[in-house]
Amino acid sequence: ITSKLPDLPTSIFTVMSSLAHKHDAVNLSQGFPDFSPDPLLIDLIAKAMKDGYNQYAPMAGIYSLREVISHKIKSLYGAEYHPESEITVTAGATQAIYTAIAALVSTGDEVIVLKPAYDCYEPVIWANGGIPVPVQLQGKTYQIDWDLFRSKITERTKMVVINTPHNPSGRVFSAEDMHQLQQSLEHTDILVLSDEVYEHLVFDDNTHQSVSKFPGLAERSLVCASFGKTFHSTGWKMGYCAAPQPLMKEFQKIHEFNVFCVNHPIQRALAVYLEEPKNYLDLGPFFQQKRDHFLNSIRDSRFSFTPSQGTYFQLLDYSAISDESDVDLAHRLTVDHKLASIPISVFNSNAEDHSQLRFCFAKTTETLDKATAIINTL
Amino acid sequence: ITSKLPDLPTSIFTVMSSLAHKHDAVNLSQGFPDFSPDPLLIDLIAKAMKDGYNQYAPMAGIYSLREVISHKIKSLYGAEYHPESEITVTAGATQAIYTAIAALVSTGDEVIVLKPAYDCYEPVIWANGGIPVPVQLQGKTYQIDWDLFRSKITERTKMVVINTPHNPSGRVFSAEDMHQLQQSLEHTDILVLSDEVYEHLVFDDNTHQSVSKFPGLAERSLVCASFGKTFHSTGWKMGYCAAPQPLMKEFQKIHEFNVFCVNHPIQRALAVYLEEPKNYLDLGPFFQQKRDHFLNSIRDSRFSFTPSQGTYFQLLDYSAISDESDVDLAHRLTVDHKLASIPISVFNSNAEDHSQLRFCFAKTTETLDKATAIINTL
Ligand SMILES: CSCCC(=O)C(=O)O
Ligand SMILES: CSCCC(=O)C(=O)O
Repeated sequence: ITSKLPDLPTSIFTVMSSLAHKHDAVNLSQGFPDFSPDPLLIDLIAKAMKDGYNQYAPMAGIYSLREVISHKIKSLYGAEYHPESEITVTAGATQAIYTAIAALVSTGDEVIVLKPAYDCYEPVIWANGGIPVPVQLQGKTYQIDWDLFRSKITERTKMVVINTPHNPSGRVFSAEDMHQLQQSLEHTDILVLSDEVYEHLVFDDNTHQSVSKFPGLAERSLVCASFGKTFHSTGWKMGYCAAPQPLMKEFQKIHEFNVFCVNHPIQRALAVYLEEPKNYLDLGPFFQQKRDHFLNSIRDSRFSFTPSQGTYFQLLDYSAISDESDVDLAHRLTVDHKLASIPISVFNSNAEDHSQLRFCFAKTTETLDKATAIINTL
Repeated sequence: ITSKLPDLPTSIFTVMSSLAHKHDAVNLSQGFPDFSPDPLLIDLIAKAMKDGYNQYAPMAGIYSLREVISHKIKSLYGAEYHPESEITVTAGATQAIYTAIAALVSTGDEVIVLKPAYDCYEPVIWANGGIPVPVQLQGKTYQIDWDLFRSKITERTKMVVINTPHNPSGRVFSAEDMHQLQQSLEHTDILVLSDEVYEHLVFDDNTHQSVSKFPGLAERSLVCASFGKTFHSTGWKMGYCAAPQPLMKEFQKIHEFNVFCVNHPIQRALAVYLEEPKNYLDLGPFFQQKRDHFLNSIRDSRFSFTPSQGTYFQLLDYSAISDESDVDLAHRLTVDHKLASIPISVFNSNAEDHSQLRFCFAKTTETLDKATAIINTL
């Protein structure tokens, strides 16, 4: 058998969550909450099953859910996506990302990826015959160097993958960044795949800049979103993709044969639950409080940091503590100190900023207190 | 945008179910039951959500579910699949089929497909750069012509897709067919993708011949199965793939980045529910009764048929009634007579046996009685 991905190691999320489990460590590694979704949402799903919504949903998703997604995008970003032809409900944002790349990237196509990057983009590009072209974010604040970015555009560039709020850095890209992106792509046919799974998790005076807000970008973009990240239900595997009709048409050709459709009773429940904007608008303050609690508790530790602007991740710099590699340290902290995190180098292509570990603060106060108590001993 | 699947029409299942809905027709087209799963299974899912199983499952599925799947395969087919490394839980059999092809078929690879064939195989092969090579099943009983089959094997043949019990014909391939397949592939590296989603829906004195039962086949095969078809829950999108470790390793590399994992609370529920073999062993008699009720009610109609051996589909030959094309007739029956079916030609590549429509009998007695009353007026 010839492998399409010969050098693929086991996912860092699987490695660290398993290690955390094995050593009974506080698990701030893999990005998921350790608390459950709103009981109302669970009851809505149970009700949908009892009401008999247990057979295939329409391929793109039930209409009422696509409609309320369309309203949400309109009210937040002023963008119009037609529920009938421009929104597809997916088995999580991961399936949306895979499907978008499988539908639109062909053998030899180059795809620009800002690094550090979430770990799925590059394998999916490779698996579909594309060539990832890394563009390194700059410095401890992960700025985009737009001249560097533009220098990577070639005639073979098919797509740019962006991700804001950005995992693992917690950086929220600015409106100015989006203008730069728009201008850089003007007069090209380059597509944008925008991973916006943390769109509602934005803190302080930062604002999420969805590509869908920007004329010149929206037309060429596929936006991927996650109900798992938004409603504390990463294990339900629900998300969506929104894109203009010509792009969505290609997306659906793969979606139809990749999964055909996604879980029907959960769609029914989400369609009702999304009607109440409070259910997602309250998320920013909710997670900001968790970030603040986490950071306030470790102000006197030997880790240094720039507060996360969005996502539910916080990078901590350990230069003052150790000159181990981040992979070694993440391993040692889990085994010896019972605290699991993610070494940033797994998202990265160069070694410049590898003296950092990523911690997920989507946890109960109790879990955060256990974690910060450990951090303060290091 | 250049399309990877430029000529793809809207799925026949979407077309016919929409048309049925629009004209308030009895819907025996798309393959799904019009009744719900065991209430116990629904309760188990609700309980799993309330018990807090709402975050990511392990990538390949929760261990207890993989273990009980492994036991099931062992007890039914005598085959050993290691739960740790040879079974992956998927978002329905469709995602298993897509993932297997994406993982193992590369540009220029030929894939043999027995026709008529379920509509997803060929687009997925095309989308991944492969070349479908059709082999027509023979006559009204859909025999495999093994000499014809062998004549299609070339140096570029990478994979064979087989499907038993067979949709749309309702044919269950024999042990002799499996021996022929095994012998035809001996001394080659050709893989087998075996779509066995109707494995438990087998009637009369027929026996499901899983590829996993046959040494020489099992080693080269990926077997795809469906909890949706088995537990009357096509809208939950749960299935699995079983394959020897070297094949499963490649499968999981794509699975990990396609969906990462699948619905966690439903996995918990299925792990418990599958422990009781009655829950799947009773399916054959249950659906055989439905088939018999359906066929007994139309014995005096002008349709002719060979009783289905498996699946929940029955082909009816309409030669005595009309010389319309099957597509035209399926449309007219839905609009004018309020009965929806699937024209067999959409699964086919030649016109030889197109005087047939496919009817799904996974319906309540009430629905079947409405349908047969219409059939008897034609
Ligand atoms: C799919 S597991 C990874 C979860 C996540 O988004 C992260 O930890 O970055
Ligand atoms: C995915 S919709 C098609 C359902 C089915 O298996 C069939 O009707 O053949």
